[in-house]
Amino acid sequence: MTTIAYLGPAGTFTEQAVWNFDLPDPHLVPVDSPAEALNEVRAGRADYAVVAVENSVDGAVTATTDALAEAPGVQIYGETELEIAFAIMTRPGASLVDATRFATHPVAYQQVKRWMAEHAPNATFHPATSNGAAAQLVAEGEADVAAAPERAAELLGLKVHARGVADLSTARTRFVLVGASGTPTPRTGNDRTSIVFQTPNEPGTLVAALQEFAFRGVHLSRIESRPTRKEPNTYSFHVDIVGHIDDTAVAEALRAVYLRSSQITYLGSWPCAQQATWPSGNPRLAEAQAWVDGLR
Amino acid sequence: MTTIAYLGPAGTFTEQAVWNFDLPDPHLVPVDSPAEALNEVRAGRADYAVVAVENSVDGAVTATTDALAEAPGVQIYGETELEIAFAIMTRPGASLVDATRFATHPVAYQQVKRWMAEHAPNATFHPATSNGAAAQLVAEGEADVAAAPERAAELLGLKVHARGVADLSTARTRFVLVGASGTPTPRTGNDRTSIVFQTPNEPGTLVAALQEFAFRGVHLSRIESRPTRKEPNTYSFHVDIVGHIDDTAVAEALRAVYLRSSQITYLGSWPCAQQATWPSGNPRLAEAQAWVDGLR
Repeated sequence: MTTIAYLGPAGTFTEQAVWNFDLPDPHLVPVDSPAEALNEVRAGRADYAVVAVENSVDGAVTATTDALAEAPGVQIYGETELEIAFAIMTRPGASLVDATRFATHPVAYQQVKRWMAEHAPNATFHPATSNGAAAQLVAEGEADVAAAPERAAELLGLKVHARGVADLSTARTRFVLVGASGTPTPRTGNDRTSIVFQTPNEPGTLVAALQEFAFRGVHLSRIESRPTRKEPNTYSFHVDIVGHIDDTAVAEALRAVYLRSSQITYLGSWPCAQQATWPSGNPRLAEAQAWVDGLR
Repeated sequence: MTTIAYLGPAGTFTEQAVWNFDLPDPHLVPVDSPAEALNEVRAGRADYAVVAVENSVDGAVTATTDALAEAPGVQIYGETELEIAFAIMTRPGASLVDATRFATHPVAYQQVKRWMAEHAPNATFHPATSNGAAAQLVAEGEADVAAAPERAAELLGLKVHARGVADLSTARTRFVLVGASGTPTPRTGNDRTSIVFQTPNEPGTLVAALQEFAFRGVHLSRIESRPTRKEPNTYSFHVDIVGHIDDTAVAEALRAVYLRSSQITYLGSWPCAQQATWPSGNPRLAEAQAWVDGLR
């Protein structure tokens, strides 16, 4: 049995992402936040957590990136991407025009507000803790209309008025599969590596660290700065690297960044869901390494 | 009369920040989001907007940074910092232990949840659109307890059970004063400059742009990447620079970054609320400029 903690209740996009990973004999445990999901893994109560890390419209899911960085013990083993479009649902027999209380997660709200203003002009936004919870509020009569994954309507017997609703059609969310740290992963040739580091609180130290990647042709697919919460005006940097820790150029860059960091955490190397536009490193690097190895 | 749009209702921290700017004959207009506040300025209906840009615990207020970047016409003229600590309030005569519905803004929730778990163990979190709105929910009987600025309790006649509540005592939020763009500001010697830029979607272009600052000893106090919302996996970078556009080194770095950017927006140069730890630029730069000027 594989125990997987995820942001519940059933019917959230995170639940849908869990099924994408196709884990053997899955046992799903809904929890209230990405931080709780990771803590289930740290405490050994779950084999994996599935958590959202980045949305193409709203950027990093900071609740997740902070929770990944704040304690050791976890490592990312895989990722999946979902196109985020919503079903608009009410109780059976109810109409959209009469709806006055509109529940959804604040991130979802950003993605459907134009559509809702046009089709449910009398509905005022009430934030919910998840899209699944929003659908539950409708089922319980606490709200009139919800924007949520279609699966939530199925689970709760709600009426779907529209499918595939998204103000921006490019909205995608990336979810990662997180397990206990310490297991090396095989290089596939199309991988992503993630680290969190802090540089000494002096001018120029971040650029110097980023140059260690640039020098070596190692590309970054994402960079976020987050407050350390310990000292004001200090930040940790979350960086996604194109490549695997077994790639010579990536390993060399990570050694160099380690030397420039006051703190550094490895969050894993795993296969990308999509092909990287710009693969890292010089294709002749293996040849160069063989040449050096032959001389010593 | 000075018309100022801010995230309402009355009793939010943003309202408190408005008073800090001490504008002549203020007329306050509460609106529902930072984006709306900026649009009041763009439309000429307000002289200024006051919006939160960064919190020392939760990082950038992305709703604001996105709204600043998404359309031209606005410029930052000043900033103020508030220590963020909450008053915990109920209706008069009610107790904390009996409270079951706890309303506050999700960012505020992150800052008081430990305290609340200890002192109001039966209260479940219900997200509100602002702290002021949370206090109103309590006044209207829709919630039992709110975490909000003390001023909200005064305005609504609520009972304050505790003051200065914050799980992390370092929580501070920075607010900026935004007006119509186009007015140059005087250099004070302790200034901040903000820009948003996009580099061509090719490897190494961000680091190359950041090096233009590092080369010249121009320090960055903040860097954020945000999805462009136009093309997947493209980002714009929001950078706060220590210094004023009238500083030789800052102007030179901005010229160089302009040449490396596919798009760039100047958001203003204004006096810092606090003394910068690391002033930008070489103190002998004026001397060097005088030397070059004398030769041509």
